[in-house]
Amino acid sequence: MSSLRQDIGGHGSNGIVQALLTDLYQITMAYAYWKSGKENEPAVFDLFFRKNPFNGEFTIFAGLEESLKLVKGFHFSESDIEYLRKQLSPSTDPAFFDYLKGLTAKDVTVCAVPEGEVVFPRVPLITLSGPLAVVQLLETPLLNLVNYASLVATNAARFRLAAGPDIVLLEFGLRRAQGPDGGLSASRYCYLGGFDGTSNVLAGKMFGIPVKGTHAHAFITSYTGLDQIKHRMLPPADGGPEKDFVQATLDHLNKLASVLDFLPDQVHRGEMAAFISYAQAFPHDMLALVDTYDVLRSGVPNFCAVALSLHDFGYRGKGIRLDSGDLSYLSKLTKSAFEKVSVAFGLAWFKDLMIIASNDINEDTIHSLNQQGHTINCFGIGTHLVTCQKQPALGCVYKLVEINYKPRIKLSEDIEKVTIPGRKSIYRLFGVDGTALVDLLLKGTEDPPKDQERVLCRHPIHESKRAYVTPAFIRLLQKTYWKDGKILEEMPSLTELREVTKKSLGTMRQDHKRALNPTPYKVSVSSDLYRYIHDLWLESAPIGELS
Amino acid sequence: MSSLRQDIGGHGSNGIVQALLTDLYQITMAYAYWKSGKENEPAVFDLFFRKNPFNGEFTIFAGLEESLKLVKGFHFSESDIEYLRKQLSPSTDPAFFDYLKGLTAKDVTVCAVPEGEVVFPRVPLITLSGPLAVVQLLETPLLNLVNYASLVATNAARFRLAAGPDIVLLEFGLRRAQGPDGGLSASRYCYLGGFDGTSNVLAGKMFGIPVKGTHAHAFITSYTGLDQIKHRMLPPADGGPEKDFVQATLDHLNKLASVLDFLPDQVHRGEMAAFISYAQAFPHDMLALVDTYDVLRSGVPNFCAVALSLHDFGYRGKGIRLDSGDLSYLSKLTKSAFEKVSVAFGLAWFKDLMIIASNDINEDTIHSLNQQGHTINCFGIGTHLVTCQKQPALGCVYKLVEINYKPRIKLSEDIEKVTIPGRKSIYRLFGVDGTALVDLLLKGTEDPPKDQERVLCRHPIHESKRAYVTPAFIRLLQKTYWKDGKILEEMPSLTELREVTKKSLGTMRQDHKRALNPTPYKVSVSSDLYRYIHDLWLESAPIGELS
Repeated sequence: MSSLRQDIGGHGSNGIVQALLTDLYQITMAYAYWKSGKENEPAVFDLFFRKNPFNGEFTIFAGLEESLKLVKGFHFSESDIEYLRKQLSPSTDPAFFDYLKGLTAKDVTVCAVPEGEVVFPRVPLITLSGPLAVVQLLETPLLNLVNYASLVATNAARFRLAAGPDIVLLEFGLRRAQGPDGGLSASRYCYLGGFDGTSNVLAGKMFGIPVKGTHAHAFITSYTGLDQIKHRMLPPADGGPEKDFVQATLDHLNKLASVLDFLPDQVHRGEMAAFISYAQAFPHDMLALVDTYDVLRSGVPNFCAVALSLHDFGYRGKGIRLDSGDLSYLSKLTKSAFEKVSVAFGLAWFKDLMIIASNDINEDTIHSLNQQGHTINCFGIGTHLVTCQKQPALGCVYKLVEINYKPRIKLSEDIEKVTIPGRKSIYRLFGVDGTALVDLLLKGTEDPPKDQERVLCRHPIHESKRAYVTPAFIRLLQKTYWKDGKILEEMPSLTELREVTKKSLGTMRQDHKRALNPTPYKVSVSSDLYRYIHDLWLESAPIGELS
Repeated sequence: MSSLRQDIGGHGSNGIVQALLTDLYQITMAYAYWKSGKENEPAVFDLFFRKNPFNGEFTIFAGLEESLKLVKGFHFSESDIEYLRKQLSPSTDPAFFDYLKGLTAKDVTVCAVPEGEVVFPRVPLITLSGPLAVVQLLETPLLNLVNYASLVATNAARFRLAAGPDIVLLEFGLRRAQGPDGGLSASRYCYLGGFDGTSNVLAGKMFGIPVKGTHAHAFITSYTGLDQIKHRMLPPADGGPEKDFVQATLDHLNKLASVLDFLPDQVHRGEMAAFISYAQAFPHDMLALVDTYDVLRSGVPNFCAVALSLHDFGYRGKGIRLDSGDLSYLSKLTKSAFEKVSVAFGLAWFKDLMIIASNDINEDTIHSLNQQGHTINCFGIGTHLVTCQKQPALGCVYKLVEINYKPRIKLSEDIEKVTIPGRKSIYRLFGVDGTALVDLLLKGTEDPPKDQERVLCRHPIHESKRAYVTPAFIRLLQKTYWKDGKILEEMPSLTELREVTKKSLGTMRQDHKRALNPTPYKVSVSSDLYRYIHDLWLESAPIGELS
């Protein structure tokens, strides 16, 4: 667990997460508030989203630690103020800049759902209360920090659900992410969402994520033939004298030809040289990319020959990676090749060598592979994971729900976009088996629901949708994270957050999590809150007149 | 123009763009190269993409300046090396880390297409030559820096083509970008691609992009009624004594009721208070968000009343923003309201007030609005622009094309993925009217094509696709940007890059740029290069045997 009040290393410390990382209109609004003497009016804002991503019915909340770092360090530097002076109209009152100079978030209170929890539409993930101008200024950077973090964590969790608990999932997305920081965020939050590691070395260093990798096609093509191996020898694992590793491999290749039914002279010698070199460098970690020339006629035979040599020398190969072609078909034939070698050479472990697949994999590909059958142990996933191709933005919003202790509502022609006004407390109600039944929002002043007592849960918008729920136990969803200029909760480590997600997803019914037509999880309001919303709604909406 | 050898400010300077921003397999490959004594073999890599994004037929190349910064600063710090020592297998030869310690890119040569140019599939955007291990280590960070930059610049250019040259385009994407840096990259490269400004203040400060903005719904809902206006007065523009601005606005509202056919008592007083406050703060810059309660029954009447009061006080309002609803319909009715006020009050300029639209706009929305008709002067575009929803990754690749002065080819079961081997020179051939006709790749040793001389251009893969081209003039596409540890070309400013893009797009035929079924632009090879590719291909591909 990272310590309570210390700055957590890495990500935010690159200096980009700062007060100026905002939309200009936040600044102009702050000026208009200040100009009309409203800047310190007590205001409450909810940060929430309206629709789960990826046609799913759940979302993983992430980005809270970064958000708290933003709040903690919130201020405008001298150079920020000089810049703003030039951007705002020359008629801007200069005293405003003095006001900005002294601004911090010490009078702001931040309540939030713990990072890593499963969350649902309309539930306030973060609730900020404090002086209007300051909480308003925090809007854009908070949205920025929560939106992508939650989206990519959710995406990772969906890949994990698709792949099942036993398959190793590696994030390979750095080259396709939205810039360097996009790549780091992706690695961090994919790990949180259930991945096992990343290829991104900087993310490994900054966040302590396990880092994995093998080699790329360029490595294979950089070898033209066996003559390029300058040093043919390898010392055996037991430390005896070096022996000719190249000759051992060539011998094995010839023996394999009848077992695996290939033509030894059609096996690419450059590829063989590359595998041999890699095995010499990483005799304990030989994982070979086998699709550069031809998977079954060259890559797999070459790997098997090298792996058999490594065995002679007292090492054990790891497996192969497929980066193109029909992954179901190729993985099954590769597995079958491993099994044949296993039998022919009497090596039981050979049939269990790893098969990694990494060709443009998305959630649907995994579901489809599951249906077709495959023998893949590990997926390396890049583009579709980090860019969240299926839905590239979560669409979090940040809405004013109370000002001067009066509730505010945002109306919309789209009824689903109407906001839930006022301060609220949020409970998750659980059944006897620990399954989450429903989230219930109450007015902040209402008595909380009680374990084993029946409570009426109403749909926030639709009058006729109601249910009585008798929870076995309940849980208050939000905690207070920042108050009086202090962080009040321990920040869990990334590994702990990953456990939070796993556990939280474990409380959700399977039908909420399935990929095809999942059941929506219910987010409801109390009777009191229902009336409160609808009274305010009618009060605020203009009445039209037809003539 | 930013100075030749100086560090260009901002983006890269946050410290994330560094040697460790790479995939682990780049490091393991470097070790394998070093271990087998190949680390200094002279190698050539091409960075290119295989398919234009967004179902289009062109791409804008961006990210070069950041790439050069990476190359210039490339090294492993002590702490990087300590981290890598722990990540690599304990059997790793410790001398490798001494080798890494001294590594820089001083022996690397970087040739590239100038940033901002229109580019096409298979054309090497960047060609790196130098010691194998170093150019290999640069793969992942270069792909990261070019991929998103080029993708989002292309997306911005497509929005510009859809909107036409006269509409103001603003980037509002920070809240939906992939983290803070994703937001900054988006602002920077959207401006390059043809946008006019951003709402992102930090991007404005770092890159000198014009920053624009108005206010948000929370500003409107934070006002409940006119009683919240503490100071009702505004000094006239000519400096006379303050007068009651609230009363003036209420008077105008009543006068407007018959002109615009609304019920004055149904006009939201909180919204009016918000507009009045904003006008008091920004009397020269009054731009009102009009869709919080009801565009035509409340927002537009309120804005018109405030704009008429501003006029009385010697100021001029700017216009309105629509953030929901049917933008074609609402913009037309708003324009019609402006025209009615213009006539009724004898104010010619009133009909030309600005109408900004910002509701979830994508390229298709703009085309659809163009078809339906609209009166929008400015689009504020967020999610779809910065996340590149239509295609969230460009798919650049980095392929070894030569090693030890011998060409290398990467074969693939997908014929379109076969690489073009060897060092190449790349020319763009233009017609008499300055239109780009074709890109032509030659072997590095071939004589260049000549102005007004007929040259045979062949498809790199398909034998029968050939054309004779007689260019009016030709241009060598790549320049040498980095050699002998020095940057050799001036880095244009962002504004200059924006002009490069505009000019380069101007040389492309309209049918390559259109949204629906655009014509592919031809990227061809010389006869010599064609033979060279195909000879190497046959030499490298294994021959199967059916039995």
